[in-house]
Amino acid sequence: MTGSQKRVEQITSRDKDFAQWYTDVVKKAGLIDYSGVKGCVILRPYAYAVWENIQKVLDGMFKQTGHENVYMPLLIPESLLQKEKELIEGFAPEVAWVTHGGAEELSERLCIRPTSETLFCEHYHNTVHSWRDLPKLYNQWCSVVRWEKTTRPFLRHREFLWQEGHTVHATADEAIEETVAILETYAELCEKYLAMPVIKGPKTKNETFPGAAVTYAVECMMHDGRGLQAGTSHYFGDIFAKAFDIEFTDKDNTQKHPFQTSWGVSTRLIGGIIMVHGDDSGLILPPRIAPTQLVIVPISMHKEGVLDAAKDIKTRLLTAGIRASMDMSDQSPGWKFAEYEMKGVALRLEIGPRDLAEKMCVIVRRDTGEKLHVALNGLEKEIARLLDMVHDELLERARKNLAARTFDATGLDEMKAKLEKKIGFARAMWCGNAGCEQEINEKTSMRARCVPFEQEKIADTCVCCGSPAEKMVIFGLQY
Amino acid sequence: MTGSQKRVEQITSRDKDFAQWYTDVVKKAGLIDYSGVKGCVILRPYAYAVWENIQKVLDGMFKQTGHENVYMPLLIPESLLQKEKELIEGFAPEVAWVTHGGAEELSERLCIRPTSETLFCEHYHNTVHSWRDLPKLYNQWCSVVRWEKTTRPFLRHREFLWQEGHTVHATADEAIEETVAILETYAELCEKYLAMPVIKGPKTKNETFPGAAVTYAVECMMHDGRGLQAGTSHYFGDIFAKAFDIEFTDKDNTQKHPFQTSWGVSTRLIGGIIMVHGDDSGLILPPRIAPTQLVIVPISMHKEGVLDAAKDIKTRLLTAGIRASMDMSDQSPGWKFAEYEMKGVALRLEIGPRDLAEKMCVIVRRDTGEKLHVALNGLEKEIARLLDMVHDELLERARKNLAARTFDATGLDEMKAKLEKKIGFARAMWCGNAGCEQEINEKTSMRARCVPFEQEKIADTCVCCGSPAEKMVIFGLQY
Repeated sequence: MTGSQKRVEQITSRDKDFAQWYTDVVKKAGLIDYSGVKGCVILRPYAYAVWENIQKVLDGMFKQTGHENVYMPLLIPESLLQKEKELIEGFAPEVAWVTHGGAEELSERLCIRPTSETLFCEHYHNTVHSWRDLPKLYNQWCSVVRWEKTTRPFLRHREFLWQEGHTVHATADEAIEETVAILETYAELCEKYLAMPVIKGPKTKNETFPGAAVTYAVECMMHDGRGLQAGTSHYFGDIFAKAFDIEFTDKDNTQKHPFQTSWGVSTRLIGGIIMVHGDDSGLILPPRIAPTQLVIVPISMHKEGVLDAAKDIKTRLLTAGIRASMDMSDQSPGWKFAEYEMKGVALRLEIGPRDLAEKMCVIVRRDTGEKLHVALNGLEKEIARLLDMVHDELLERARKNLAARTFDATGLDEMKAKLEKKIGFARAMWCGNAGCEQEINEKTSMRARCVPFEQEKIADTCVCCGSPAEKMVIFGLQY
Repeated sequence: MTGSQKRVEQITSRDKDFAQWYTDVVKKAGLIDYSGVKGCVILRPYAYAVWENIQKVLDGMFKQTGHENVYMPLLIPESLLQKEKELIEGFAPEVAWVTHGGAEELSERLCIRPTSETLFCEHYHNTVHSWRDLPKLYNQWCSVVRWEKTTRPFLRHREFLWQEGHTVHATADEAIEETVAILETYAELCEKYLAMPVIKGPKTKNETFPGAAVTYAVECMMHDGRGLQAGTSHYFGDIFAKAFDIEFTDKDNTQKHPFQTSWGVSTRLIGGIIMVHGDDSGLILPPRIAPTQLVIVPISMHKEGVLDAAKDIKTRLLTAGIRASMDMSDQSPGWKFAEYEMKGVALRLEIGPRDLAEKMCVIVRRDTGEKLHVALNGLEKEIARLLDMVHDELLERARKNLAARTFDATGLDEMKAKLEKKIGFARAMWCGNAGCEQEINEKTSMRARCVPFEQEKIADTCVCCGSPAEKMVIFGLQY
């Protein structure tokens, strides 16, 4: 038995038990460790480096469009949290409460932020006075706490890392424009960097964020056909501005309430990456956010010239901006192959005495297993080309899965039967009635993912009640 | 009265009331806003951008030396916090306790991390088994909470941002080497980027971090002569490894306890920057970490060609890697001058029709007020040179203040008299007795800052008891 086979046996087959496969990959690829508090996990260097790369891309996009980072406090007084009715109703059951500072009981309980709308609103109340102060395009990178009953690595933590943008604008139009522009930013992140195809659109009222007027989402499909909400962007109208008494003097010298948005993505994206791309050998990381894009495994390291050549290649690739690493440890090549397969490194470069003599090296693709003989001359360009190709093909593969697992349904029985045959997304017409949405959920367990921007009239009547229906909705099981 | 004068009158004079001056600058320069929770402040975009620049520099240095970032949970179970006796004794009086998740009381209280030694140790207990697993060079960027009685912006928050490095090594020598190497990294950050001269050395036992074997510190002097501990690096020996049962199989096949370090700097550095460099017109930011290094103020904006020329300059400077911004608002030039003086932007570039005709512009230095006529041709190089010069001169000015406010003392009366004449650092010989250290503090209010690496034998006997003394210690009042 080779080292590679041994290692792969450590993880459950993806098609046999997707949930167990996921848990195995998360642990074996060295992404997380558990802490003594349920749902509070340790992001090990490999997982955190993925998050840093996502941060770098997204933070660059935010700053490019005029957003600024701030830091709001971790703790929210109970009275402040209660200022907006729907928000407190949505979050009260799941916040963690601080009651003591040192040995003393606090006069007012403080919650650990589950989200920071209230803090931003209070700050805007203090700092927005004139049209000159608008817009404020703020974002923060932080962790939030939600005391969930059931937890799962990356997908549902009690504490998770995210970014939360909170903006305030003079007009409703401007705020809506911002909400949608951010949704597009999230879609770009998912498709261009994470190789995850998305469906974009507003949520139904029932799925809307507490206190928001409209919630837009980017929805992704996992390999097993279930949906994952990858990011949301909320338009608040002036609901929060009124609750928090935020007012400004406009150019026409009248007092007005401004209009607000908020939006966020979290480390849950890492869960999405694992579940969209991974396979029975472990993780497959999209190269543009991978901590290591290529790993060099020298073959017959002790032979003359091999190590020097490998080091030289590493330097060349790093200089060309490729995130290359080299494994010079005394483990066997087989062990190393399996290790970097498990970790999902896009390309493996093998170089031994024979390759060296031919001024060639061997490149193995993680996603396809394809083996290529590549000339050392001009290697940088070829690696860059291959990394782009891997990205494109990962995206294409995920698109095919999405297409293969999306079906149309014109009635509930059909919807249920098709779902039972193959888990996936149902495209169905909906009358807009919340009662129908609930009935669909009760009968099929599916929930409305979103009302996609790209509409198609697949029938004239609601999939549930048969009344005339104008909107096509994507329904799905969800993480 | 010009706009500039009006604005300056808003802040107290630095030499009249340093504490009030500090509070004024922090608020008027737009660095912070207060939240509803005492000691938990909002870092506004300008302050957060300074922190981001510090992070970027430091994170680059850490990664360059093989450190990796991780994320540990915010919450620590009470039983875990209690595992190391000295640590819990040091921190128990000032931690915030979470007692409820949603409506339910927790079976065990959780504290919000005041520092994360215990979490790292538990993780190392789980993941360090063999010499192959060592060293682990981990760092995290996060916020911590300490329930302080008295608080002050940047200097003493109940919640503050910091980085905390935690490393584990096979040998004591290696761990000590790491502790000192990180101290040098902090010194480099302070001097090369923040223009803050430092004194480096170990702390006395009394000033050592709870649970540490040795604490090294970089100490800075503020403009008013008080000391600020800018960063600390702790060597733990195997104290924590034993308390947390961290063991590894060494190359010789025996089980051993590894050796650990931890080290950190926080947003308190921003307080240091303000108090070292600021003056009666407001903030002065060292250019290498300033969000904006140069601000362009177009003069007679409506005149033909002015705005285009200003925009062109901005593009040129940005392209050259200079953080330039431009103020095109309808405020008067006088208002703008005062605004960017308050915000401490190193250079102001004025350009009007006359300058344009001469292919020149005016540069005004924030630190000296000096006005320079600079040719537009070759502007990028000249600006880069000026920014370096500003940095060097800020550092030099701070060094002069440090020298002018440092005095030698051979007895307690002399020490007290010199301090009363001029607040500053005392260099004094110390016998090593904790009782003397306490007496010095009681009689002069000064505390031992550190035992500097650069020693000088200024007397033969202890400043307090007169016994033979070998060590020169720096004593000072502190923030």
